Amino acid sequence: MKIIRMGDQPSKPGPDTYFTGTVRMEIEFSTEAPARVGGVTVTFEPGARTNWHTHPLGQTVIVTTGVGWARIEGEERVEIRPGDIVWFPPGVRHWHGATDTTAMTHIAIAESIDGSRVDWEEPVSDADYLAP
Amino acid sequence: MKIIRMGDQPSKPGPDTYFTGTVRMEIEFSTEAPARVGGVTVTFEPGARTNWHTHPLGQTVIVTTGVGWARIEGEERVEIRPGDIVWFPPGVRHWHGATDTTAMTHIAIAESIDGSRVDWEEPVSDADYLAP
Repeated sequence: MKIIRMGDQPSKPGPDTYFTGTVRMEIEFSTEAPARVGGVTVTFEPGARTNWHTHPLGQTVIVTTGVGWARIEGEERVEIRPGDIVWFPPGVRHWHGATDTTAMTHIAIAESIDGSRVDWEEPVSDADYLAP
Repeated sequence: MKIIRMGDQPSKPGPDTYFTGTVRMEIEFSTEAPARVGGVTVTFEPGARTNWHTHPLGQTVIVTTGVGWARIEGEERVEIRPGDIVWFPPGVRHWHGATDTTAMTHIAIAESIDGSRVDWEEPVSDADYLAP
């Protein structure tokens, strides 16, 4: 049994190469082959969001607090709330984050292939972020 | 994007074929190939615990509330608290649950192989559960 205790891992800022706004990451885990799942709890301050990105094996997001937004390219923006489970299929361009007025925390879970769980793309513009 | 809204899934009791005591399961998710991860939030009332079991590709548990116990066979019982991340390697016999006096909720995450994420075994006896 391997235990990572709350407090062992410092909270980390979400780097501005992958995020817009103020983002905090913690409770991060990964696994070794033959397993491949990993995850992290991410907190987005109001207005903060991921860049556009895809996941080679998809991503599951479980909202734990606050209210956020998520969007797949070409679809409507959706509001997400605590206890909601969001599935982004493999290879689908999307973003997620806080709303413009409320923070949001979620647990993000994804499987890696060839050592990568995510392919990052460009920031989400304010126009794209605010468009309903 | 597929969203399971909080409230869409009824809370389910943990069946007594796999658990001892009062157990509630909710916020359950699974994925389709090529992904294979799935998970569920499990709440154990005081004294409640899983049966002994193994996972073919291991299991990650994130404690969200309360205080619980976990044990790998042949090792000491450990106390687990909110924000702790516990990794049970593939094929290792173990159990987890509440303490005898406090409830515990965790998110359990595991990958499936050949359609199965867990192999259930016999209940944890009171003597095994209470042994430090």
